[in-house]
Amino acid sequence: MQVNRYEHPLNEKVRIYLRLEYLIRQMSHAAKLTDQWQYQVFFRALFDLLEILDQIQLKAELAKDLDKQREKLKQWLNIEGVDQNALLELLDSLESAQHQLLSANRLGQELREDRFLGGIKQRLSIPGGSCCFDLPALHHWQHLPLAHKQNDMQNWLNQIQELSHALGLWLKLIRESGQFSPQVARSGFYQHEAEDACLLRLDICPSHGVYPMISGHRSRFAIRFLPFEEGACIAECIEFKLAIC
Amino acid sequence: MQVNRYEHPLNEKVRIYLRLEYLIRQMSHAAKLTDQWQYQVFFRALFDLLEILDQIQLKAELAKDLDKQREKLKQWLNIEGVDQNALLELLDSLESAQHQLLSANRLGQELREDRFLGGIKQRLSIPGGSCCFDLPALHHWQHLPLAHKQNDMQNWLNQIQELSHALGLWLKLIRESGQFSPQVARSGFYQHEAEDACLLRLDICPSHGVYPMISGHRSRFAIRFLPFEEGACIAECIEFKLAIC
Repeated sequence: MQVNRYEHPLNEKVRIYLRLEYLIRQMSHAAKLTDQWQYQVFFRALFDLLEILDQIQLKAELAKDLDKQREKLKQWLNIEGVDQNALLELLDSLESAQHQLLSANRLGQELREDRFLGGIKQRLSIPGGSCCFDLPALHHWQHLPLAHKQNDMQNWLNQIQELSHALGLWLKLIRESGQFSPQVARSGFYQHEAEDACLLRLDICPSHGVYPMISGHRSRFAIRFLPFEEGACIAECIEFKLAIC
Repeated sequence: MQVNRYEHPLNEKVRIYLRLEYLIRQMSHAAKLTDQWQYQVFFRALFDLLEILDQIQLKAELAKDLDKQREKLKQWLNIEGVDQNALLELLDSLESAQHQLLSANRLGQELREDRFLGGIKQRLSIPGGSCCFDLPALHHWQHLPLAHKQNDMQNWLNQIQELSHALGLWLKLIRESGQFSPQVARSGFYQHEAEDACLLRLDICPSHGVYPMISGHRSRFAIRFLPFEEGACIAECIEFKLAIC
């Protein structure tokens, strides 16, 4: 049975982490250039990512978060029943991701300074502003051999690989920290305590015809299920699965 | 031999027409949803298009331009050697495109009023702002059956079909009004008179490693060929083909 997964951040930092992960996912996929317009997806995601990085001190924050995860995990050392090899391996990956992140240049700096990318960024905010007469250099680039373009894109992606790796690891651990359990919304509504959680994950069968609007913060959250089709009725009981991470 | 084609508008109106055509091309391609991120391309192109339509009285302008083309073509009626059947057919298409355009509602009005699209538009300007927690309704839509989504996209496209058809026809006639002829740029530079032209079309072999920066208006234009690779040399003579339309 098909299930739609929704994720909702319970604080501003996780909101930013999820947005960055989402942009990196777009870039990684679009870098394959399997479709002729994927360069649009790639460049827009890249400039969105740089804009977010300009707004916050991500490197220090993320390194601190990786550190907190390490401290948490260390409590499982020498505890019977815990796979010590797997634990040590995980601690190693965390340490290495943190180290790589901290020793990287200012995140995205080379991308910001790239003349070719800079030209595209300027025009992309104009409606329809990436026509061949707006960006003849991009038009030339688009007609380079596929392997050349894929290589360029991979190089641009490599500029954020420390971020990508550290972010992926942290989000993976956070996601794994919560277990899905079945829940029921009455009259389309559900609320619960969150107890220092930072991420909600919700699985729902699309056949209900609803999507969740979630509001909440560290201590409490509420989910309201809304009908996708305007004016449609909502079932008295809606079953879904929820993980509080 | 591969040839890269560049087009450059010589007035503001043609600049807008080319941008609209470029956006409609993106939408038409992305509406097939052959790639998972094409919905991004589709929605961004759609909102860019609506933004352009908000800025100008396109309908009246384009109808006037179609009329001018008709008047021009009528001069060929009853001229020996001109295929009268083809001419009459073309005059008919122009008249019908103009009629359909003028009898259409305000261009894109239903798209502007669409609640679902409105929600997406608001968020798309936020960097990374189309995550599932930003746009749960879009997330639900993305997981609908492919045929359902393709159908939605086709319906949205249909809202601008009169524009799309009229624009395509006008640009086709303008493009056909110029003949490509071989030219040579000396030291990367070429200039010429334009004599009431509105569009330049340029074919150049990518192996020259250059792209054209064109500046100009109705009476005169200049083309400067720039090296794509920073600091690369430019050949003394660069051959290209040019059509002044």
